[in-house]
Amino acid sequence: MVLGKVVGTVWATRKDDDLVGMKFQIVKHIGLDYKLKETFVIAVDTVQAGVGDVVLVTSGSSARQTAVTKNKPVDAVIVAVVDKLDVVD
Amino acid sequence: MVLGKVVGTVWATRKDDDLVGMKFQIVKHIGLDYKLKETFVIAVDTVQAGVGDVVLVTSGSSARQTAVTKNKPVDAVIVAVVDKLDVVD
Amino acid sequence: MVLGKVVGTVWATRKDDDLVGMKFQIVKHIGLDYKLKETFVIAVDTVQAGVGDVVLVTSGSSARQTAVTKNKPVDAVIVAVVDKLDVVD
Amino acid sequence: MVLGKVVGTVWATRKDDDLVGMKFQIVKHIGLDYKLKETFVIAVDTVQAGVGDVVLVTSGSSARQTAVTKNKPVDAVIVAVVDKLDVVD
Amino acid sequence: MVLGKVVGTVWATRKDDDLVGMKFQIVKHIGLDYKLKETFVIAVDTVQAGVGDVVLVTSGSSARQTAVTKNKPVDAVIVAVVDKLDVVD
Repeated sequence: MVLGKVVGTVWATRKDDDLVGMKFQIVKHIGLDYKLKETFVIAVDTVQAGVGDVVLVTSGSSARQTAVTKNKPVDAVIVAVVDKLDVVD
Repeated sequence: MVLGKVVGTVWATRKDDDLVGMKFQIVKHIGLDYKLKETFVIAVDTVQAGVGDVVLVTSGSSARQTAVTKNKPVDAVIVAVVDKLDVVD
Repeated sequence: MVLGKVVGTVWATRKDDDLVGMKFQIVKHIGLDYKLKETFVIAVDTVQAGVGDVVLVTSGSSARQTAVTKNKPVDAVIVAVVDKLDVVD
Repeated sequence: MVLGKVVGTVWATRKDDDLVGMKFQIVKHIGLDYKLKETFVIAVDTVQAGVGDVVLVTSGSSARQTAVTKNKPVDAVIVAVVDKLDVVD
Repeated sequence: MVLGKVVGTVWATRKDDDLVGMKFQIVKHIGLDYKLKETFVIAVDTVQAGVGDVVLVTSGSSARQTAVTKNKPVDAVIVAVVDKLDVVD
């Protein structure tokens, strides 16, 4: 999984029928110091993650292993809201 | 999913039989400021996305989870036309 | 899919039994201006693509969705020979 | 697989039900000289790997091929603790 | 597939049960000029590839399509030992 921070939302009316009702969050990647990177991914939210939340994003076929995304054309999903990083560097 | 903008089309007569009838759009990646990046992907269109449209592209095995691409040798598909990005950076 | 140009062939006698008879083409990635990039991928040919041809390469599990590569340990396949790129940049 | 070193743990209370009970380790990529790189991945532990351990991480759909991660929305898993690298460079 | 050269072996006693008996080779990526790159991958050997051999590595779910790796948590496998590269650049 990768670590990111929700910084916004994508709105799209015209889309694949299987995507109706999903929330597409914009997740910027972050470092272990929580600093935002330039790169980002659009991920479907399944845990009510809101803007500002630090999250874990699962990608690829594993992104379809949630109740919300099963068999859907989705390749990235927010699977957890992070409380804390314990880093012993 | 990744964010991109349709900038053109690929024409190919000689191709896998399973790809006949599909539209191959050239999608340049964009940033949250809508600026075009140098990188791009060729994605099958399933939502009538045209040149100039900002789109969401799904990759990998998830790209085969649409009616058009089911069981086809396709690894990238346009699944939505983006109306708006709400970014709180 | 990614865009590339066939620049050569890989010869390998000792290989997985499932790969016998396949043609492994060396495909250099190209830009929308057809310029060769430094990066490349080794892809199984399914459309009689020869050296100099501009091609579309499908990667990952989708590379196994052709008659030639079904259930084979192949992660990249040439699925089309490109005639033309229409780019409105 | 990629080579990494466990440098910490991610704590997350709000998460997909299928992830309950899993341990999310922060794994920094390393070189063959064991030097830490800047990049990292969050991987589910299945071999009791602790902070400081050098590990092998499996990604993608293959990350779901362990008893712990079967059918779960997990895209990276620690599958081995490395004892030694024999490198003849 | 990607092109690489076997430069060593990973030893790991503590690992997923499904990995017992597999040989984990360290494969450095190479260019078409056979020059070693800095990047590398740890791949399961299925063709008796030894140190110094130039090899083809298959990644992702396709890495599980060999007799040795079927249903195993393996995401990279050596599928061929390369004899020769014919490059017309």
